[in-house]
Amino acid sequence: MRNRIFSGMRPTGSLHIGHLSVLQNWAALQDEYECYFGIVDWHALTTGYEDKLDLKALIREMALDWLSVGIDPEKSAVFIQSQVKEHAELHLLFSMFTPISWLERVPTYKDQLQQLGNEGKDLHTYGFLGYPLLQAADILVYKAKAVPVGEDQIPHIELCREVGRRFNYLYGNVFPEPQALIGKVPLLPGVDGRKMSKSYNNAISLTASTEEINIRVKQMITDPERLRKDDPGHPEVCVVSKFHHIYTPDVKRVEEECCAGKIGCVACKKYLAENIDKVLAPYRERRLFWDEDGKVEKVLQEGAEKARITAAATMAEVRSALGI
Amino acid sequence: MRNRIFSGMRPTGSLHIGHLSVLQNWAALQDEYECYFGIVDWHALTTGYEDKLDLKALIREMALDWLSVGIDPEKSAVFIQSQVKEHAELHLLFSMFTPISWLERVPTYKDQLQQLGNEGKDLHTYGFLGYPLLQAADILVYKAKAVPVGEDQIPHIELCREVGRRFNYLYGNVFPEPQALIGKVPLLPGVDGRKMSKSYNNAISLTASTEEINIRVKQMITDPERLRKDDPGHPEVCVVSKFHHIYTPDVKRVEEECCAGKIGCVACKKYLAENIDKVLAPYRERRLFWDEDGKVEKVLQEGAEKARITAAATMAEVRSALGI
Ligand code: SF4
Ligand code: SF4
Repeated sequence: MRNRIFSGMRPTGSLHIGHLSVLQNWAALQDEYECYFGIVDWHALTTGYEDKLDLKALIREMALDWLSVGIDPEKSAVFIQSQVKEHAELHLLFSMFTPISWLERVPTYKDQLQQLGNEGKDLHTYGFLGYPLLQAADILVYKAKAVPVGEDQIPHIELCREVGRRFNYLYGNVFPEPQALIGKVPLLPGVDGRKMSKSYNNAISLTASTEEINIRVKQMITDPERLRKDDPGHPEVCVVSKFHHIYTPDVKRVEEECCAGKIGCVACKKYLAENIDKVLAPYRERRLFWDEDGKVEKVLQEGAEKARITAAATMAEVRSALGI
Repeated sequence: MRNRIFSGMRPTGSLHIGHLSVLQNWAALQDEYECYFGIVDWHALTTGYEDKLDLKALIREMALDWLSVGIDPEKSAVFIQSQVKEHAELHLLFSMFTPISWLERVPTYKDQLQQLGNEGKDLHTYGFLGYPLLQAADILVYKAKAVPVGEDQIPHIELCREVGRRFNYLYGNVFPEPQALIGKVPLLPGVDGRKMSKSYNNAISLTASTEEINIRVKQMITDPERLRKDDPGHPEVCVVSKFHHIYTPDVKRVEEECCAGKIGCVACKKYLAENIDKVLAPYRERRLFWDEDGKVEKVLQEGAEKARITAAATMAEVRSALGI
């Protein structure tokens, strides 16, 4: 039996190429692990309970994003969290023996409370405090041994392990101790040099057409000291170069030509746009395949069924340990 | 369509005659209301997560207690909370928009935290803070319009109404505002005059035999100033008299005879024991009927099915309001 993985994303908006490495990482793990990938809509409500999100549409877009990048429903369970009620049940049971102090001292809690507070969101809610506990349930309901996450999520995985250990200590050994699989996530800026974000309108969408990619790359900020083509450039201060590092196999050559004043920014950007397009084109094509009537819905339905079978088996063990 | 009622009890130990009036009240409501009576085992875990309760046995005993007193599974849904997962789902959804401060200021929260803390229980848990929110879900998942409770539960019903109002405000009108039906609960002391409690060994069990009733009544503390039969007695300081007020139709006569020194305490107690036995005897008999192989299990299974149908209909509305 292969080890299991759980990972999830909140369906709060369409993905951009800054998210790509995470999904590519997921796709690569599918052969080695039994994977459960959840579109965690309950978590989207945690932070967005006042946002009147069109969750149905957002969920469908996210599933398409995943499938187009190579998440394979033949290999992995792709499902919507709220369709697997066992997450809510385990979260409730975990809540019984989890000290409030454990949740209050998760480093992201106070940070996010303040950060989202500055954005006008009041998250002094019971659910936001319990957010990492729901994550623990998301992971442990599949007895996942590993969780692909970013570095910022390490404290959540640590809490998850603590909660599992406490359950095992109180009621008998049911849960493994999942490990964080830290994927390398290159930090790609937006075209304006700020953080890439849909709300800054500086992102390249995963679904961008060749034309849209061209427009965005043209908007990228370059070395401001380079006025003419034969001025020596400084790739380290150029947004274009940061993208070349991800999308251009012969990035070394481009950098050398820039430093030597042998390539103009216009040509350099054109080359980048082509290279980004080469990566996104097959995703766009696969997306068309999956976007046909009913295909996504079928994937999500079958994914939920598969997830429920595994989750129900865990919950049977949990209830038996608790004597209910 | 009749209005709905939800009420529940934690299966933390067998019931005594101090609980009887609550159950008799439930039984009386069955014709007027569509009743959902839940054995709330998740709540038992909230306060007893370290207690290694034999919940299976406790649940069965509680169901027998209810059935023997006249809760009628033909009229009412009698079920185990943990078998209706919708309670957990709604609780989770409520958590998203419920301010922590609402839960912290429930008057029972700090009181119980301290009281149970004195008994050695550490209840600084996430689940104990969320206890009234789970109660709100218990009630509102059936769209109950009324909740038979004791006076101490009024703040919980108020919170339940607030939570339902907030949901309706944020997502559209789904929930009614349940009213508390305050049942008159005569405060019966234990045979030693302290609070009646299994742990003080001063209670008369609901299942007490004629013999056990006799023993308990003999242990009751009487007017300490009354040494001989013809001394005038003071019923107002006598435990026996408090029970006569509940169990003896001609209590007036007994009191007068006591005050006039016309009845001895031995005879007075014998008369009380007979009157208690007259109430409990039919319960004992009905209990024998329900205690046969598989009957309780069938009631609980059918009750859960009935409860799930109602709860699932509410959750469909809830999910549609939330857009998931
Ligand atoms: S040549 Fe390319 S890397 Fe150099 S500054 Fe221009 S856009 Fe940036
Ligand atoms: S006669 Fe009855 S009521 Fe009076 S003191 Fe004795 S036991 Fe109590």
